[in-house]
Amino acid sequence: MFDSFDAIRDRLLNAPGPDEDARARAATRNATLTKPPGALGRLEDLALWYAGWRGDPRPRITAPQVLVFAGNHGVAARGVSAFPPDVTAQMVANFKAGGAAINQLVGLAGARLDVIALDLNRPTMDFTTGPAMAATDCLAAFGTGWQAVGHGADLLVTGEMGIGNTTSAAAIAHALYGGAASDWTGRGTGLDDDGLARKAQVVAEGLAANPDAARDPFAALRCLGGREIAAMAGAIARARCLRIPVLLDGFIATAAAAVLHEAVPGALDHAQAGHVSAEAAHGRLLDQLGLDPLLSLGLRLGEGTGAVLAIQVLKGALACHSGMATFAEAGVSGG
Amino acid sequence: MFDSFDAIRDRLLNAPGPDEDARARAATRNATLTKPPGALGRLEDLALWYAGWRGDPRPRITAPQVLVFAGNHGVAARGVSAFPPDVTAQMVANFKAGGAAINQLVGLAGARLDVIALDLNRPTMDFTTGPAMAATDCLAAFGTGWQAVGHGADLLVTGEMGIGNTTSAAAIAHALYGGAASDWTGRGTGLDDDGLARKAQVVAEGLAANPDAARDPFAALRCLGGREIAAMAGAIARARCLRIPVLLDGFIATAAAAVLHEAVPGALDHAQAGHVSAEAAHGRLLDQLGLDPLLSLGLRLGEGTGAVLAIQVLKGALACHSGMATFAEAGVSGG
Repeated sequence: MFDSFDAIRDRLLNAPGPDEDARARAATRNATLTKPPGALGRLEDLALWYAGWRGDPRPRITAPQVLVFAGNHGVAARGVSAFPPDVTAQMVANFKAGGAAINQLVGLAGARLDVIALDLNRPTMDFTTGPAMAATDCLAAFGTGWQAVGHGADLLVTGEMGIGNTTSAAAIAHALYGGAASDWTGRGTGLDDDGLARKAQVVAEGLAANPDAARDPFAALRCLGGREIAAMAGAIARARCLRIPVLLDGFIATAAAAVLHEAVPGALDHAQAGHVSAEAAHGRLLDQLGLDPLLSLGLRLGEGTGAVLAIQVLKGALACHSGMATFAEAGVSGG
Repeated sequence: MFDSFDAIRDRLLNAPGPDEDARARAATRNATLTKPPGALGRLEDLALWYAGWRGDPRPRITAPQVLVFAGNHGVAARGVSAFPPDVTAQMVANFKAGGAAINQLVGLAGARLDVIALDLNRPTMDFTTGPAMAATDCLAAFGTGWQAVGHGADLLVTGEMGIGNTTSAAAIAHALYGGAASDWTGRGTGLDDDGLARKAQVVAEGLAANPDAARDPFAALRCLGGREIAAMAGAIARARCLRIPVLLDGFIATAAAAVLHEAVPGALDHAQAGHVSAEAAHGRLLDQLGLDPLLSLGLRLGEGTGAVLAIQVLKGALACHSGMATFAEAGVSGG
């Protein structure tokens, strides 16, 4: 798929922007709908954003796609998670059997779910001793995500499962945005105080062992990320090229997105933050990206759950925008 | 229906509480589901709250009811709205024809919508010159709301339409909670600065003209409210007696609910705040009620729109709670 990170940069630099004419026509329609101007708040902004990216002034969401990627992390051996690494594969089986939270929310949203496990029996290297992945390995995972995006999809959510991957996301965020390792480190699935201190130490060691990571966003992805994180970056990048809007999920999905954002200006113009999670660093990361989350419900599960819940908000925005009567149609004064 | 406000108080004082056994069984189930403890955040709290009120440890929402009440306000003649009073009836016609925002969101939520216009050709009295309603008139409107709640409903949202009714809601809130009139007064559907100052003055005059309103919550409803506000209070009270959970909409619906809350302790135990609106006083009012809104999207439309959008969040909570596999069922370690 890609033989270098420069090739990815080139594709993103040449990706098309939104259809400004469709957006303008959506704005004209919005101004005629039977409500006071601006009374639907954020829903109005969402409708115009979506209309522009889809090139349709009166769109609906009919084919949302949810991609859940799973990967295992060498750094999990450092005691950075409350759960053992076996849980990654067990949860993949649970996703496939329909028993996880994401399955229930996907059903409610009328979305398509694809679950893609990436070499679970071959964890990445422990990044405190060197790069987590070779370039070819990282590019292959990125390519898997890229190719998983369905061309018929009209909305994309990427989710993930991977014991240890909040540590990986924290290390990426630390590499991209500096600060202290502890600024980006949280309790994940439920670490105690000792575990949290150990995790911050591991993040700091990761950066020390991989000095390239702080200089190049794709090096941060390769040296500190995981296959599921690279695959999410690939899927989000592909959606940008296909003008498929994206709702970002939690801290880990947002770390994948941040790599693209830092690598190529405008790479996330097609994305909104579906929610802000209970992992404190997520809000900090969204601030760096200039994204205002649609939901704030204290979720910290991953899998894509928060973003899939937010699909309903976006669907509501489009139902209003595309379904409401105009002042003239309804015979209401004041339009 | 009711011949006195004391009779309403008695009914609420004798209303049943939630089923603590069902709630406890729901909590037991929640602890076994395939996710880290607490990882679904607010969704877990919502599921237990709903399970308790419905007396079902593994519930679903299948019959949500949305009641939209409309009323006209004498105080609208004081220039407190950006729209003329004719718009109330025009929007009722729009609701019935399916062209309003609420119709689109009700469709998305799979809810039933009942639109009830209350004597639109007979506005309430201008409350700056005396009580908005006679007791019989207010009790009749309350009774209309009470009787509109369907016994088969498993969730209730009340919405409203009434030109001038943020002024009425502001006056009720000012009567219940004191402060300055301007603390409770906002731009509603889009007042300019002069209109906003006039509106705060009208709210202050309303309280001065109706000293009983500050002493008794039901007097606040009668003297400063409107028929649609009384009807919402009636519907929310009836839902409390039938153990039907309620999602509150915006400032005006919350003002109706606040009357019940101040009249009888625990009268809103069955209610959650669906959202917080762009009307600044709404957040202040929710704080008084100790309610944390599910959504914050800058809506300021009324009609029930914000709360109906929040139905999706509650449905998501119940889909996860009632649909997920347990650790034992899925063979996942760590449960």
